[in-house]
Amino acid sequence: MDQVSVGLLGFGTVGSGVVHLLLQEQEQLGERAGCPIHLEKVLVRDKEKLRKIKLDDDRFTVDASDVLDNPNIDIVIEVMGGIEETRQHIHRALRNKKHVITANKDLMAVYGSELLEAASDNGCDLYYEASVAGGIPILRSLTDGLAADRIQKMMGIVNGTTNYILSKMNREPVTYEEVLKEAQALGFAEADPTSDVEGLDAARKMVILSHLAYSVPVNLEDVSIEGITEVAQKDILYSKKLGYAIKLIGIAELDNQMIDISVQPTLLPERHPLASVENEYNAVYVYGESVGETMFYGPGAGELPTAIAVVSDLISVVKNMYHGTCGDHIFLPRREKICKPDEAIKTQYFIRLHLKDEPGAFSKMTDLFKKQGVSLEKLIQEPLDDHQSAEVAIITHETNKKMFEETYHLLKDLDVIEDIKSYYRVEGMK
Amino acid sequence: MDQVSVGLLGFGTVGSGVVHLLLQEQEQLGERAGCPIHLEKVLVRDKEKLRKIKLDDDRFTVDASDVLDNPNIDIVIEVMGGIEETRQHIHRALRNKKHVITANKDLMAVYGSELLEAASDNGCDLYYEASVAGGIPILRSLTDGLAADRIQKMMGIVNGTTNYILSKMNREPVTYEEVLKEAQALGFAEADPTSDVEGLDAARKMVILSHLAYSVPVNLEDVSIEGITEVAQKDILYSKKLGYAIKLIGIAELDNQMIDISVQPTLLPERHPLASVENEYNAVYVYGESVGETMFYGPGAGELPTAIAVVSDLISVVKNMYHGTCGDHIFLPRREKICKPDEAIKTQYFIRLHLKDEPGAFSKMTDLFKKQGVSLEKLIQEPLDDHQSAEVAIITHETNKKMFEETYHLLKDLDVIEDIKSYYRVEGMK
Repeated sequence: MDQVSVGLLGFGTVGSGVVHLLLQEQEQLGERAGCPIHLEKVLVRDKEKLRKIKLDDDRFTVDASDVLDNPNIDIVIEVMGGIEETRQHIHRALRNKKHVITANKDLMAVYGSELLEAASDNGCDLYYEASVAGGIPILRSLTDGLAADRIQKMMGIVNGTTNYILSKMNREPVTYEEVLKEAQALGFAEADPTSDVEGLDAARKMVILSHLAYSVPVNLEDVSIEGITEVAQKDILYSKKLGYAIKLIGIAELDNQMIDISVQPTLLPERHPLASVENEYNAVYVYGESVGETMFYGPGAGELPTAIAVVSDLISVVKNMYHGTCGDHIFLPRREKICKPDEAIKTQYFIRLHLKDEPGAFSKMTDLFKKQGVSLEKLIQEPLDDHQSAEVAIITHETNKKMFEETYHLLKDLDVIEDIKSYYRVEGMK
Repeated sequence: MDQVSVGLLGFGTVGSGVVHLLLQEQEQLGERAGCPIHLEKVLVRDKEKLRKIKLDDDRFTVDASDVLDNPNIDIVIEVMGGIEETRQHIHRALRNKKHVITANKDLMAVYGSELLEAASDNGCDLYYEASVAGGIPILRSLTDGLAADRIQKMMGIVNGTTNYILSKMNREPVTYEEVLKEAQALGFAEADPTSDVEGLDAARKMVILSHLAYSVPVNLEDVSIEGITEVAQKDILYSKKLGYAIKLIGIAELDNQMIDISVQPTLLPERHPLASVENEYNAVYVYGESVGETMFYGPGAGELPTAIAVVSDLISVVKNMYHGTCGDHIFLPRREKICKPDEAIKTQYFIRLHLKDEPGAFSKMTDLFKKQGVSLEKLIQEPLDDHQSAEVAIITHETNKKMFEETYHLLKDLDVIEDIKSYYRVEGMK
């Protein structure tokens, strides 16, 4: 091959990073890929917009077909985001036998299987390393590095915004709302942070990871999702006292052929490898039957880290083209999906509640736990300022989700309990 | 391909793990590799030895040629260890057009370039993921996942034995000798622990990592090596007081085309991602120009984790065979080796010394640092039990290796200094 030509869909943050690398590192990339890589066209919305990277005018186009139907283009890099229009673009590129690299987690979480199948049918590559945990090569580690193992569990800090907020709340006595505002001012949180703080973004990434690690056709609807908007400074305080850190954790397990995927604020023991992942960093903890504990840590977003993931994919695709092996590396689900019922989901819980300060209140509460078969591992009780009630924070022993939720509702109705402030999942050390 | 046949050299710990996976996971491995994998022959020293995994008698051989010259065998897995004989075996296998997978860091650190070249000449694969950090797919992450980046620095906890010893010394007031004995009893340290505790094992792994990340033909002689045998409980104590943890760290940097590779006890800030890597775990911290900080964490040794790395390599080789791309994935050094001179190696230092308790002693010492241009960032002074001298622990600001060693010798000769107990490299947060 004399040269490989690339078309870019989108020229935002990640797109700029990709162009920067393609121009700046031209020689090194050519060397590593085995042939020169040429940037042919860039689809933009507005050709006149001022950009920090300068390109000749004729490299820009506002017409998608200049990329998607361009016979000179071998590989399409999609960094425009969005779902429906982008999905059509990628289908069109694949029909035209162009290989595709995408950084689009929203798209891959929803239409991943469909697009991978289309790529496979067309003998094309479809790579998407950048869609999960930006600069961390986690997808490759699952498909190649740990190829021989059976992954049993993955836990991910896969959303930088929420990890930034919780890290800050952990270090300083600030509220969720205060940190969110600051994060927005610093550019660590979007103007509309909903999909981050409500856990949806993390859920999308867990879907992509589960698809690869468990070979199961997972949908977003299979994920039980809870965000961080209700996490109070007091939850963090009591967690610390009990030896835990609260993180927004995506958990995906395969157990006895059944999968369970969830995203929620979770208490991790302070010594857990994920507990010290701070600020906007991401990490994916993978437990394999044979390999045991591994963890992959790095920047989860950002112009250049994400661009590195995209361009590393590009090098792989160019090598596949050279070897004539495009389309052979696509993982399509091989297993049927069976979701774990709530009574089989075993975990510990943290619960924080206000208990009336009256004789017998404490034993009424503990009797209820006992009757439900939920035993308590750790407990802290502290008086509240009103002197009429006490705050109690509890870590239960392992129980199942169904039983715990039943207990929660019974506790809520118990006359000696004024209010249940919060409850969260608790993970142990493996 | 109907089937791929494998021959095994060696049936020790890792070999048993590999055979366990090949038999136990036959179906899954066949599915992932694309065709069934058959274990044809196993070279052992003693056919009669009792083993926990049972194989038919005729699978064993004591004659290496039954594996190396066996026309039925496509892939040779070398897990026998050793250097000279093994090197000849691998050359012979490659000449016979057999692909090779090895877990042998000693061999790859010394003869890696030679063997990779032989593999390339014969159009064969030579994979060695298991040689560095057992269950962590770090070699693949460097060559594929971060392919587009320029790696600037790697820091590795790549020896489990020494990390176990230092972790224990960090938690409990025990001496090096006490922990070593315990580690030997528990099987975490060899009967002859020299190559681990003197840093040689870690140095070999840093050579292999540097070769891949920097594309430079590095030798073991290029690595400055210092082990942990002199680390005292007091060093750990003062490090803690100053906010650091002592770890045996392999450091490999590429700066301005010059490389610098070393292994030594190193102080890391407690918040550094490597500082919380405990016990026998390994981790490799990689700093890339674009991607920034990443870290790969997992078990560094052990039967099954190492076997997973070997068998994941096996899956890759079988795929390459199927695609006809064997020998195409070999990384040979492309850059000339220029080693960094000592005056260009910039770092901070920790030094612990005994100072006479007499008027002017302290300022005599600090004057010497000042005259040398080495400024001090942190200092602790505490009286010693003899009441005639004080113990001083210092963290310097960044200086260069040559200047620091000169200062060390001048301090040693200073009349107010009774003794210099230790000095170590100190790394900051990036």
